[in-house]
Amino acid sequence: MADFIIGIDGGGTSCRAAVADPRGVVLGRGKSGAANILTDPNNAIQSITDAAEAAFRDAGLPPEEVRNADAFLGLAGTNVGNLTQYVRERLPFRHTDIDSDGLIALQGAIGDADGSVAILGTGTIFMARRDGKVHYIGGWGFTIGDLGGGARLGHALLQEALLVHDGIHEGSAVTAAILDEFRHDPTAMVEFARLSKPGDFGRYAPLVFRHAQAGDKGALALLQDGARSVNEALDAITRIGGHERLCLLGGLAPLYPAWLEARHRAILVEPQADALTGAVALAAKRHKERARDDEPRRDEAGDAS
Amino acid sequence: MADFIIGIDGGGTSCRAAVADPRGVVLGRGKSGAANILTDPNNAIQSITDAAEAAFRDAGLPPEEVRNADAFLGLAGTNVGNLTQYVRERLPFRHTDIDSDGLIALQGAIGDADGSVAILGTGTIFMARRDGKVHYIGGWGFTIGDLGGGARLGHALLQEALLVHDGIHEGSAVTAAILDEFRHDPTAMVEFARLSKPGDFGRYAPLVFRHAQAGDKGALALLQDGARSVNEALDAITRIGGHERLCLLGGLAPLYPAWLEARHRAILVEPQADALTGAVALAAKRHKERARDDEPRRDEAGDAS
Repeated sequence: MADFIIGIDGGGTSCRAAVADPRGVVLGRGKSGAANILTDPNNAIQSITDAAEAAFRDAGLPPEEVRNADAFLGLAGTNVGNLTQYVRERLPFRHTDIDSDGLIALQGAIGDADGSVAILGTGTIFMARRDGKVHYIGGWGFTIGDLGGGARLGHALLQEALLVHDGIHEGSAVTAAILDEFRHDPTAMVEFARLSKPGDFGRYAPLVFRHAQAGDKGALALLQDGARSVNEALDAITRIGGHERLCLLGGLAPLYPAWLEARHRAILVEPQADALTGAVALAAKRHKERARDDEPRRDEAGDAS
Repeated sequence: MADFIIGIDGGGTSCRAAVADPRGVVLGRGKSGAANILTDPNNAIQSITDAAEAAFRDAGLPPEEVRNADAFLGLAGTNVGNLTQYVRERLPFRHTDIDSDGLIALQGAIGDADGSVAILGTGTIFMARRDGKVHYIGGWGFTIGDLGGGARLGHALLQEALLVHDGIHEGSAVTAAILDEFRHDPTAMVEFARLSKPGDFGRYAPLVFRHAQAGDKGALALLQDGARSVNEALDAITRIGGHERLCLLGGLAPLYPAWLEARHRAILVEPQADALTGAVALAAKRHKERARDDEPRRDEAGDAS
């Protein structure tokens, strides 16, 4: 029986899988639907299984072989609640390791090195590896966290537009764009905000960056607030991860560097690989550890002889 | 048949009514449960009717006489949606005028004078009367409005405590109080915030004022943010309402003055009366207008002769 490993990158919109040989050389890839273990664990189990089987088929392997493979899953939502155990017990793999989507992103981005990684998307989370240990800062979600993320930027823009509408603040091009979009109807803005999920607010973040780049006063103020939050969090995470390397990931990663402090810009590195590659690397590492643990302890016996 | 008028002050937690003679001299008062026309219009109709009938009983009048009375209702939630018509048609009064809870508060606070009124409670709303016309600023609710209100202050405190927990900001006594309350468990804070309504956040606002008064650095920063928002809104509302008088209402009204700009403190006045009294005054005014409209137009005839 051949040994295979599987890396899984599961999130709220899709689930990606890769099957690899035990060294981590990828043989095939597969994709499926949402794998959010918090909101729908049973659907997540199905998506994860589907993606893994698709990867086996892509590699020309029988999909039922997933039962003999060791999988490493990086999943969103593992830090809240305790559904991890429930999901693990219902997956078809021989061994199943589940960790956060952040960890596989970090592994993909900086490999085995020490350093820091910031995911700047709808939300924000900051991670650092130091002497093999991974530390997390932020990532607490939209309600009282994720400062500097796209959702908070978009939310701040709507709030500012309402202040302009009320004559409390002076407007600028960026708030005019919002007020025009909502036909200068504050109740429409309030209703939109009331029904919005973080992603809905986040869709306005690129507008803030675009207007700030053009020198718009209102957009600059909003972005300076967001960038201050990100800079402060980067100070905290690089105190742990050191000042050798910092890697930005997420939808806002290409937009943020110009707004960061020089000390952070100076250590920016490009990601080595994506999160799925990170999941495969971690699957290979765990597989190797297990193989070593299963061997007869010749070294120990030798030491004792 | 005797003429009676009714003033109603209906809100999310209770409904108060007063019956008065046509000049506005109060004869009896009644109270009942919540009258939130947005979340439960039918229950609001019942509460309003109950409070009115209780007021009639309190005055020694038969409760069924409410059918022959003219009522003025100040209700929360009238600026959103269009349930006002639905509620009006189902109330037992002879004439029913419905306006915002803000308007009756303004009437109670400054009577018929020009001036400005700020309600600083869980949320914030700013009103001004100028040449008989009433203007509103803010009051858009917690999601993207109500800056400087208790809910936003409490929310900002929880957010700050999370930044302290993450080592991003330095802590102080006020964030220590929060972190102790949540046993330094960030997921408990996030979960509390996720389930919280504005009033739940607002319960932490007095803590911010108390620590700020004691010179706590963290509380001062939070309160300076909140006070800046209130000061800016007061600038906007006094541009309309003039600089003769400004009246603060709401749970935070006793706490905020020390944190306001001198130009606002200089024109502060105590409220003349409460919102229910304002509702009675407006009911009397409308009743008088109707009586005048119903009279034969002697003046006009005179002018034409």
